[in-house]
Amino acid sequence: MVLTTTEFDTIAAISTPPGEGGISIVRISGEEALDVAKKIYRGKSLDKVASNTINYGHIIDPSTGQEIDEVMLSVMRAPHTYTKEDIIEINCHGGIVATNRILQLVISNGARMAEPGEFTKRAFLNGRIDLSQSEAVMDLIEAKTDRSMKAAINQLDGNLSHLIKHLRKDILDVLAQVEVNIDYPEYDDVETMTSKLLREKATDVHKRIVQLLQTAKQGKILRDGLATSIIGRPNVGKSSLLNHLLHEDKAIVTDVPGTTRDVLEEYANVQGVPLKLVDTAGIRDTTDKVEKIGVDRSRKAIASADLILLVLNASEELTDEDRQLIKATNGKQRIVVLNKTDLPIKLKLNEIKQLTHADHIISTSAIKSDGLKELEKLISKMFFDEGISSSQNDVMVTNARHIGLLNQAKQALEDVIKGLDTGMPVDLVQIDMTRCWDLLGEITGDSYQDELIDQLFSQFCLGK
Amino acid sequence: MVLTTTEFDTIAAISTPPGEGGISIVRISGEEALDVAKKIYRGKSLDKVASNTINYGHIIDPSTGQEIDEVMLSVMRAPHTYTKEDIIEINCHGGIVATNRILQLVISNGARMAEPGEFTKRAFLNGRIDLSQSEAVMDLIEAKTDRSMKAAINQLDGNLSHLIKHLRKDILDVLAQVEVNIDYPEYDDVETMTSKLLREKATDVHKRIVQLLQTAKQGKILRDGLATSIIGRPNVGKSSLLNHLLHEDKAIVTDVPGTTRDVLEEYANVQGVPLKLVDTAGIRDTTDKVEKIGVDRSRKAIASADLILLVLNASEELTDEDRQLIKATNGKQRIVVLNKTDLPIKLKLNEIKQLTHADHIISTSAIKSDGLKELEKLISKMFFDEGISSSQNDVMVTNARHIGLLNQAKQALEDVIKGLDTGMPVDLVQIDMTRCWDLLGEITGDSYQDELIDQLFSQFCLGK
Repeated sequence: MVLTTTEFDTIAAISTPPGEGGISIVRISGEEALDVAKKIYRGKSLDKVASNTINYGHIIDPSTGQEIDEVMLSVMRAPHTYTKEDIIEINCHGGIVATNRILQLVISNGARMAEPGEFTKRAFLNGRIDLSQSEAVMDLIEAKTDRSMKAAINQLDGNLSHLIKHLRKDILDVLAQVEVNIDYPEYDDVETMTSKLLREKATDVHKRIVQLLQTAKQGKILRDGLATSIIGRPNVGKSSLLNHLLHEDKAIVTDVPGTTRDVLEEYANVQGVPLKLVDTAGIRDTTDKVEKIGVDRSRKAIASADLILLVLNASEELTDEDRQLIKATNGKQRIVVLNKTDLPIKLKLNEIKQLTHADHIISTSAIKSDGLKELEKLISKMFFDEGISSSQNDVMVTNARHIGLLNQAKQALEDVIKGLDTGMPVDLVQIDMTRCWDLLGEITGDSYQDELIDQLFSQFCLGK
Repeated sequence: MVLTTTEFDTIAAISTPPGEGGISIVRISGEEALDVAKKIYRGKSLDKVASNTINYGHIIDPSTGQEIDEVMLSVMRAPHTYTKEDIIEINCHGGIVATNRILQLVISNGARMAEPGEFTKRAFLNGRIDLSQSEAVMDLIEAKTDRSMKAAINQLDGNLSHLIKHLRKDILDVLAQVEVNIDYPEYDDVETMTSKLLREKATDVHKRIVQLLQTAKQGKILRDGLATSIIGRPNVGKSSLLNHLLHEDKAIVTDVPGTTRDVLEEYANVQGVPLKLVDTAGIRDTTDKVEKIGVDRSRKAIASADLILLVLNASEELTDEDRQLIKATNGKQRIVVLNKTDLPIKLKLNEIKQLTHADHIISTSAIKSDGLKELEKLISKMFFDEGISSSQNDVMVTNARHIGLLNQAKQALEDVIKGLDTGMPVDLVQIDMTRCWDLLGEITGDSYQDELIDQLFSQFCLGK
C-alpha cells in the first residue's frame, strides 16, 4: 500500500445534513486545520485555547473584512480526534448560504474540499479504526431500525474486528509453526505432525466461520432491509396495506443519492425488521383506489424480492389473475394476505392452501385494521425467530462484502482440508491457509488494495 | 408580561437539518440539562468537566444498558451560552434512527421536546438578544444570497436594535421633560416650551424613521426575495430562461414546511438579489419544449409578482396573445425579454416600445446565452441601483413586521405634529408620542405581548 501525500493535506466539508436547520457544521481536518481557522476566525487566539474546547467568535472574510456568521468553534487537537489529525469544527447558524460561504472561505484559505467519506477514510488510514468499523459508521448512519442500529454499533465497537483478528492470529500461529517445522525437519514425523496441526486449525476456524455466516442472512436484512413486494390484482387493498406498513413515524423515506427525487426507497419498520418496499410507485399512483401494477411489472418486483406479500380479496372468488400471481410467486418466501375479511367471505381457504402449498396465510381487514399486527408478527417470526440474539456482544455479520469474503475464506479452508485428505504437500496446503488469512484481513482492512478503499469510502456521505 | 414556569423547564431537540449526514446534534437546554445527560452518557464525569469542553463517550439506554451511539458531548454552562442556560450538545454519527433514539432517551430522562424556535426564544426571554436579533437568526438561516445574509448578520449584530433603542431613548427623554414641565408649571411659557420641545423631537425622530423606511423596499427583497414571474405564450423560451436563471449552484430550492414535496420555492441568485420564481411548475412541466402556462394561470402569477419577465419571440411577429400579455402586465415592474434573437428578427421594436410604454427591453438568445448577463445586470440595477450601501454598519430594515411598526410609528409622530399644529392640549399629544415609543419597542421586544412572541417563534425551525 502506497500512501500519496495528497491523502494527508487539509480537508473540509459541511458535515451536517444538507438543508436549513438550527445548526450546521463545517469540519476541517489536517495539519493546517488550525492555520486555516485562524485566518477566518475572530475571537480568542486559537493558539492559546486548549484541545477539546468550544470557542465563541465570528467568521470574517479576510479579503473584505465582511462578517459572515456568529459561530462556536471547536478545537480538537491530534491525535485524540475522529481522524487522529487536528480537527476544527465551525458550528454555525444553520443557513444554506452562510454555511456554504464559510466552507468557501475555508477552501480559499488553504483547505481542499473533502471527498465523500474522507474523514472516516483518514480515521482508517491513520489507524484509529479498522475497515469493518469504518463501514459500521456508514451502516449506523443509514440504519433503518433499532435492530439495524444495534448491529451497526456492535460492529463499530469492534466486536466483529476482534473476532476476525482472533481467527487471523490463530491462522498465523499455525502458519508460523508450519514454517518452523519445514525449516527444521529434525523429526521423522514432522510431515504427519504438521498435517495434523493444519487440519485441526483449519477445522476449528472453519467451524467458527460457519457459525458467523449463520448470522449473515439476518444480518444482511438488518443492514440492507428485507426487499418486500406487495403483489395482487387491482383493488384488493394493496395500497391500504402499504399505508399501514408505512404508518406515520414508522416509515423512513430515503433519497437515493445521485438520482432524482422521484426515486425513493421506502422502508417500513416491522418490529425492528426493516422492510424495504419494492416498486411502491405503482401502488401509490392510484386512481379511484385501483392500484395499477401490471402483471409484467409484478414479475420484476417478484424477482427482486426477498418476501412477497400476495394480497387476495377474500370477499370475491379466486380469479385467473390471482391464480397467475400465486403461480408466479411459488418458491419465494411468501405470505398470502386474505384481505377484506370484514365483507362476506367467498374465497375458499382450502383451495388457497392447496394452491400455495400451505404458505403462511393471514386474514386481514385493512379497513378495520384487523390482522395487521399478526401480519407484522409473522414477518418478524419468519426471519428472526429464535435466531436473533439480544446480547449486545453477539457478533453478527451484516455486510455483503464481509459475507462474500467469509464464504471465500471458508472455501479456502475446505481446500486446505481437501488438500490434506488427498495427500497434497504441506507447502501447497499452506498457500490455501495463507489465502484464508488474507481474505479475513480484507474484512478488517489489514490487507487491502487502494481501489477497494477508494470504492468503499466513495459510498459514504459528504462530511463524514 | 407573565412568564409561566414551564417556559424554563429543560428542553431538547435535534438541531441539525433533518436527514442523513456526517453529524447530527441533539441539543438540551435548561437547569436539568446536565442531569439528563449524566443519566444517558458514559464517559468522563460531567460534574468534573469544565464549561465549553467537548467530551468523548457513549450514549447508553439506562433501562437496558444498550449502547446507542458513540458521541462527542459538549458541555456549556450558564450563563455564557446561546440560551443563557446550561446547554448540552450531543454530537453523534448522523443517522436518522440513532439520532431519534438519543432524543427519545433525553426526553424519557427528564427533558421535554422543544417547540420550534424555543432555544432562541429563551435567548430572548433570558435577555441575551432582543426580538429583532432573534428574528435575524431565522433570517440568517433562510438567507438566499450573500446580500440577504449580510443584511441578516447586520441585524443579528444589533445594529437595527441600537438605532431603535436610540430613537426610543430620545422619545423617552422628551416625554420625561414634558412630564416635568407639566408637574411644575412655574413659568408662563411652559405650554409653548413643551410644544416646541415635542415638535422638535417628533420632527427629528420622524426624519430618522423615514430614512430607515427608505431601505425597506430593498430590505424586504433581500429578506423575502423578489417575487418574479416569467410570462409568455408557449414556445417563446420561458423554460430556457428559467433554467438559465436557476443555473446550477445559483439555485436554492426550498421545501415549504408543512406541504408536500411538490410545492417548492425556487430562488435564483441574480447578482445577490434573491429572485423568488413564482409558479415555475407550469414552465417545468414541458412537453416538446412547449411551456404550458394558460392565460388564466398567468394572470394569477402576474398579480402576485414584484417583477414580470415578459418573454416574446423576436423571430415571429407579435400575436394577439402577446398583446394580451403585454396589456395584462401594464403597470407592473416589467422587463420585456426579446428572445431568439439568433433567428431572423420579425418583431417590430418600435411597436413593442409603444405598447409597453418603453419598458426595460432586453434582447436575448437563450440558445447562444446572449443578453442573459445584461438581463441580470438590469434586474439588479432596477432594484438596487445606487441605493444599496456596501458599508457593513448601515442599518437596513428587512422584515415586514418591522416595516409595519415603523410605518405606524411614523404615523403616530405625524399625529403628534398635527395635534400641536391644531392646538391640541399637550397631555393628549403626549399619548401619541408614547404610542410611538411603544411601537418602536415592539421591534426590539422591549414592549410585546405573549401572543406575538409565541407566533413569531413558532415560525422558526425545530432545534433553533
